[in-house]
Amino acid sequence: MGLSLDITAYLEEKKVVIEDWLKRAIPPETPALATIHRAMRYSLMARSKRIRPILTLATAEAMGGKIEAALPFACALELIHTYSLIHDDLPAMDNDDFRRGQPTNHKVFGEAMAILAGDALLTQAFILMSSPSLTMRSSSPPLVSPQLTLRIIQEIAKAAGVEGMVGGQVMDVELEGQPATLAQVEDMHRLKTGAIFLAAVRVGGLVAEASEEQMEILSCYGRHIGLAFQIVDDVLNVEGQPQVLGKSVGSDRLARKATFPSVLGLEESKRCARQHYALAIQALEGFDSRADTLRALAEFVVGRRF
Amino acid sequence: MGLSLDITAYLEEKKVVIEDWLKRAIPPETPALATIHRAMRYSLMARSKRIRPILTLATAEAMGGKIEAALPFACALELIHTYSLIHDDLPAMDNDDFRRGQPTNHKVFGEAMAILAGDALLTQAFILMSSPSLTMRSSSPPLVSPQLTLRIIQEIAKAAGVEGMVGGQVMDVELEGQPATLAQVEDMHRLKTGAIFLAAVRVGGLVAEASEEQMEILSCYGRHIGLAFQIVDDVLNVEGQPQVLGKSVGSDRLARKATFPSVLGLEESKRCARQHYALAIQALEGFDSRADTLRALAEFVVGRRF
Repeated sequence: MGLSLDITAYLEEKKVVIEDWLKRAIPPETPALATIHRAMRYSLMARSKRIRPILTLATAEAMGGKIEAALPFACALELIHTYSLIHDDLPAMDNDDFRRGQPTNHKVFGEAMAILAGDALLTQAFILMSSPSLTMRSSSPPLVSPQLTLRIIQEIAKAAGVEGMVGGQVMDVELEGQPATLAQVEDMHRLKTGAIFLAAVRVGGLVAEASEEQMEILSCYGRHIGLAFQIVDDVLNVEGQPQVLGKSVGSDRLARKATFPSVLGLEESKRCARQHYALAIQALEGFDSRADTLRALAEFVVGRRF
Repeated sequence: MGLSLDITAYLEEKKVVIEDWLKRAIPPETPALATIHRAMRYSLMARSKRIRPILTLATAEAMGGKIEAALPFACALELIHTYSLIHDDLPAMDNDDFRRGQPTNHKVFGEAMAILAGDALLTQAFILMSSPSLTMRSSSPPLVSPQLTLRIIQEIAKAAGVEGMVGGQVMDVELEGQPATLAQVEDMHRLKTGAIFLAAVRVGGLVAEASEEQMEILSCYGRHIGLAFQIVDDVLNVEGQPQVLGKSVGSDRLARKATFPSVLGLEESKRCARQHYALAIQALEGFDSRADTLRALAEFVVGRRF
């Protein structure tokens, strides 16, 4: 499809912008703190599609907002996502050896440094979002007002916290080895992956000062695309190729994880992902062609590898 | 001394206010997330002097500010301090079994939950500080403007991050078992404990809209009181009583930690703590009697148990 070709170029272009920003998001190495700076950078700059920050930029653009205004928040989400990968991979959690195409953080830097690198990345996200350069430009009016900046920080912190991503990881840990219901798996994924996806989309809308009604539509889109993404992720863990994914395959089954395939089977899981894709597209019905990137992103998320 | 008696009542009074606020700082338990809520509350509500948040409240009062305006930030600092204790106690870090008079978080809830409880407390601090209730009171003007709220979030995030507390913990991990110099121990403590103490004092000043000059004085006071506190902490780890301290004693020496006593000896360390106390008091010279609480707090910090 032509759409797929366009989205490939779009993804690449935005990835470059985001990675350029991310490179400067961590303080430069100093001798006393060289190890932790390296550990942070190691995971942050590893191979990644940057799908969450791209969603923020794409939503901001679709709503008529500015990329530059959305970038710090988009990148903060990527820092938070990266910290969660480092902590999730720890021996006490999923005990994974391979991530983003390279050995996991604790395999290279040791457990203590991996815990601290995660802590530092999470905190760095809030340093970036509250940075005075965002709201106190001497020459021109701020890109995002202090009031709106606070509202976005609130949105992102809640999505990352105990009633969002961290809560989802707790459910994941607690469901391990237990017989899970579809409702439990959905609840877990809604928090673990869904909350950050939803925030990525909503923050794009907030930066662009979208209306209440538009925010409702974006939220619906964000919820479905987040679930679709996670179902595809679960399916790929069963039938994907490790060299393409950059992480271990089959690990969910070995760890007796609660996943969509474990409760629905593979074919029904794929059907379910396509259904959430359809609902994401349907949510955008009232939006004009400026939302085409969001439509293409939904397709990309579901179509990743099957 | 009369001063000591007054400060005891002051500390108790403020502790009650802070703990009342902290109780409501964590979302109420829900069935699906009961464990993590309990794990967060277990460490947050354990026995503690609440010295950091009290410093914030005392500084705000000394500068003519309002306790209610300072409370959310003071409590956020206590959440951040608590998360750092949970992570520092983990087997991969200091591997401590006993803290705040009770078994450490991972001893009770397991390592995975302890890592997540720490992550959740850190994130919760930013949820609280960016809460709309702080800046959007419909009836009256906000206690703290959005602009100032952002500046305080920035101050606290930096103090907690890789160039503050986390960086100090990295140095602590890296110096373990190494022959350390006094400069290295000072640098480590300046970040590990000092940054949050400094922030606690400065945030009190910021809330009260202290002048640049006053902020300089407060910063000087905060730096010296932070170092004094940590030196005393190191000394107590050698000669304190575990039942009074609520944590293990002698653990620094066993772990071959870089501490003030290990580089200076006990007597010279005590002299050094008293010197930082004197410098903290000296910094406040230009302040009137409203700063007496700050003076008494400095005395309390150094005089804790010797």
